[in-house]
Amino acid sequence: MIQGDKQFPSKLLEEAVNEFASLPGIGRKTAFRMVMHLLRSDSAAVKRFGEAVIRLREDVCYCRFCHGISDNPVCDICSDNRRDKTVICVVESVQDVMAVENTRQYNGLYHVLGGIISPVDGIGPSDLTINQLEERVKEGGISEIILALSTTMEGDTTNYYIYKRLNQYDITISTLARGVAIGDVLEYTDEITLGQSIINRRHFTLPGRV
Amino acid sequence: MIQGDKQFPSKLLEEAVNEFASLPGIGRKTAFRMVMHLLRSDSAAVKRFGEAVIRLREDVCYCRFCHGISDNPVCDICSDNRRDKTVICVVESVQDVMAVENTRQYNGLYHVLGGIISPVDGIGPSDLTINQLEERVKEGGISEIILALSTTMEGDTTNYYIYKRLNQYDITISTLARGVAIGDVLEYTDEITLGQSIINRRHFTLPGRV
Repeated sequence: MIQGDKQFPSKLLEEAVNEFASLPGIGRKTAFRMVMHLLRSDSAAVKRFGEAVIRLREDVCYCRFCHGISDNPVCDICSDNRRDKTVICVVESVQDVMAVENTRQYNGLYHVLGGIISPVDGIGPSDLTINQLEERVKEGGISEIILALSTTMEGDTTNYYIYKRLNQYDITISTLARGVAIGDVLEYTDEITLGQSIINRRHFTLPGRV
Repeated sequence: MIQGDKQFPSKLLEEAVNEFASLPGIGRKTAFRMVMHLLRSDSAAVKRFGEAVIRLREDVCYCRFCHGISDNPVCDICSDNRRDKTVICVVESVQDVMAVENTRQYNGLYHVLGGIISPVDGIGPSDLTINQLEERVKEGGISEIILALSTTMEGDTTNYYIYKRLNQYDITISTLARGVAIGDVLEYTDEITLGQSIINRRHFTLPGRV
C-alpha cells in the first residue's frame, strides 16, 4: 500500500511521483506505477516524453481567428481555402473541434470559446472568447453561427448569452439538433430528450447524408 | 469522441498525447485530458514536470548493495548504522521496500530482486539480482534471509529457487506468515488461506507488537 506518509527512497522518484499525481484523475498509486514504468523504459524514450511535455506548453499557440490550438498563428482549418468561410461552428474546446471534424459532415470554420459560462465555477462571459466571436461577425462575411455546446444548463445559458449578443447582426443562429441518439433504445431514453424529439419531429426521409 | 483516426490540430499536441498514451493504463482519451490540463497549467509547473521526468531517468541510480532505487550509490537504508545488518528482507521491487518500511516492524536490510521468476513472461533467475544476493550471503555477517515475495505461483517458485541456492550457507531462511488478513471476515476468506492459517495456528497471545 502506498500511503501518504511513505518515505521515498529517492528524492528524484518522489518528485516525479508528485508531478504525475498532480494530473487530473491520477492518484499517488497510479502515479507511482507510471514512474516505475518510465524507469524501466528506454532512456531516450523518457527524454522524448519529458521534452514533448516542455515543448507542448512552451511552443503551442492559439489560432488568432478561431482560438483553437495550433502550431502556427493561423490554424490549418482557418487557413484552408476549401472550407466554407461563411459559417462558424461555436464550440467549447479543441476536443469538440476534433469531434465535429471526425463526423466529416461539416466544412465551415470554428470558434473555440475556451469554456462555457458557469457561475458556479466563476466563469463569466469575459473569460471566454465571446468578444472575439462578435468581432468576427462584425467584420462581415458570416452568414450562419452554429452553436455546438453541451446540452447542459451551462451550455444553454451560454447559447442564450451568445444569441442575445449576436441577434442584432444579420446572421442565422442555429443550434445542434437535440433528440434520440443513434443506437438508443426508446425505453431507456430520458423523458426530456424524448419529449424534445417529439416536439422537433421531422418528415421521414430515407437514411443518408442530408 | 476521440478516435484513432482523429486529426490533431497541432503536431505538438499530438506528440504529447502519444507520449502520455504510452503509459500503462492510460488510453488516448485520458492522455488527451492530461495534456489539456497541462496546457491550462502554469508554464513553470509544466516545465518542472517535464524536467522531473527527464532527471528521473537520467540521474536515478540503484544501490550497489540492495539494488533499490536511490539518489546515491549506497541507499539511505544500507548506509544507516542503526539498522540490523544481519537480516536481509528479499523483495520484488522498491514499492515493496516502501510497503515493509511503512509497517515500522522491520529494522534490517533489503534486497530488491527487480522482479520475480516468471517463465510465461520470459523472466528467469539470471534476470534478477539473485547472484548478487548470494554474494552478499557469501561475504558473511548475515544470519537471516526473509523471503517477502507475492504469495502467487511465481512468488512460490522464486522462494523455492532462492531457498535451494542459499540453503548451503549457515543462515536461517524464513518467509512471511500466511494467514487470514487483519480485518477479514472468515466467511469470505478463500479456503487455501484459511486452511494454511489453521495448519500454521499459533498460541493465543494478547494483541501487541511481538
